[in-house]
Amino acid sequence: MKKLYEGKAKIVYENDDDTYIIKFKDDVTAFDAIKKANISEKGRINLEITSIVFELLEKNNIKTHFIKKLSENSMLVKKAKRLDVEVVVRNKAAGSLCKRLGIKESTELNPPLVELFYKSDELHDPLICIEHVKLLNLCSEEDVSIMKQTALKVNDILKAFFDNINIELIDFKLEFGKTKEGDIILIDEISPDSCRLWDKTTKEKLDKDRFRFDLGDLKEGYLKILNSIRSS
Amino acid sequence: MKKLYEGKAKIVYENDDDTYIIKFKDDVTAFDAIKKANISEKGRINLEITSIVFELLEKNNIKTHFIKKLSENSMLVKKAKRLDVEVVVRNKAAGSLCKRLGIKESTELNPPLVELFYKSDELHDPLICIEHVKLLNLCSEEDVSIMKQTALKVNDILKAFFDNINIELIDFKLEFGKTKEGDIILIDEISPDSCRLWDKTTKEKLDKDRFRFDLGDLKEGYLKILNSIRSS
Repeated sequence: MKKLYEGKAKIVYENDDDTYIIKFKDDVTAFDAIKKANISEKGRINLEITSIVFELLEKNNIKTHFIKKLSENSMLVKKAKRLDVEVVVRNKAAGSLCKRLGIKESTELNPPLVELFYKSDELHDPLICIEHVKLLNLCSEEDVSIMKQTALKVNDILKAFFDNINIELIDFKLEFGKTKEGDIILIDEISPDSCRLWDKTTKEKLDKDRFRFDLGDLKEGYLKILNSIRSS
Repeated sequence: MKKLYEGKAKIVYENDDDTYIIKFKDDVTAFDAIKKANISEKGRINLEITSIVFELLEKNNIKTHFIKKLSENSMLVKKAKRLDVEVVVRNKAAGSLCKRLGIKESTELNPPLVELFYKSDELHDPLICIEHVKLLNLCSEEDVSIMKQTALKVNDILKAFFDNINIELIDFKLEFGKTKEGDIILIDEISPDSCRLWDKTTKEKLDKDRFRFDLGDLKEGYLKILNSIRSS
């Protein structure tokens, strides 16, 4: 298979005219890949969670690139041209937001805060506003409006989904792509690599912050999420 | 006089119920005050330029806090509660924008780019979008809209003004305040400390970048601007 793109946690392969195959790696990186590790089964767990979440979203009329799982660590997806705008939705303050604006961790954000970032490893994914999207010609204003609305719908669906298994959705990052038909669909993954998820009772962090800040075994946190999903 | 606030380049003193007195210092700082110097007459020159520019703006129906010069380095201004949102207008890419978004210096920005920053020394004045203004409750959405519109009007006036004396207005920062009547007016200063100004013919940088990047004598650049204004 022809490798099209290799990211920090996934590889995208060419497949046929309409699809790609995405392989989930066991690599985990943080702080612009300054901190790195390889954690066995991480790829498998993240793919499993991503599949379940994308299927849930599809059932709720959110279009995603997900077609089906092909193996333990690979999935078949619909081709879509990636838009270089990442959309972050935050229900409570955490991570870069706290540092950037001096907001205390876990401050309630109501309405949820929607932020845009320019997807560029070289520039370390800087925060951008709608004016920068236009300046850099990343996509149209209408595209941004669709992405933001979709992100808020995804937030409603996932907040309820995780709440039901006693997990709080603190924030998450979405990536979008445009199909050849011109539809904007969710791409990439939705996993504990891209979401902050806290145990509602114990407040234990179950997501990638475990790795970033040495809060505990990464796989243990990810498996807690997957097992809670499975047993619901 | 009671000192109300001391910034890096100016001091604000209480005066009467309706006014403050602002003293321009000869201090110059850059990179969050890591680089510092005292340059004789800088205060006088910046106050002179600020007075001329504010009078020009007033003539063009832009409300400012400027009332009159009181001395070589102090001015009387109308009281206004500072809004903690700085508005930057950019006609060409320079400074932090180039670094942040990987844009080549002097790239034409058409339409001009308007950016908002959260005025906070502690947080190093981070870039913010309208969503952050609302989250931090810095001012209303309508206030932001007035500030942006005013900033673009100021840009038109100042671009023409400097163009006429063979200087190019690359970018500038504005601060706003709210009077007790509820009007949003321009406050602070407009000087080579807050504007990037390049000689149109030689492309020589005449503003604070001379100090930031050791491009030449600061006072010489500032005086070139003032003398060009005076002889026009």
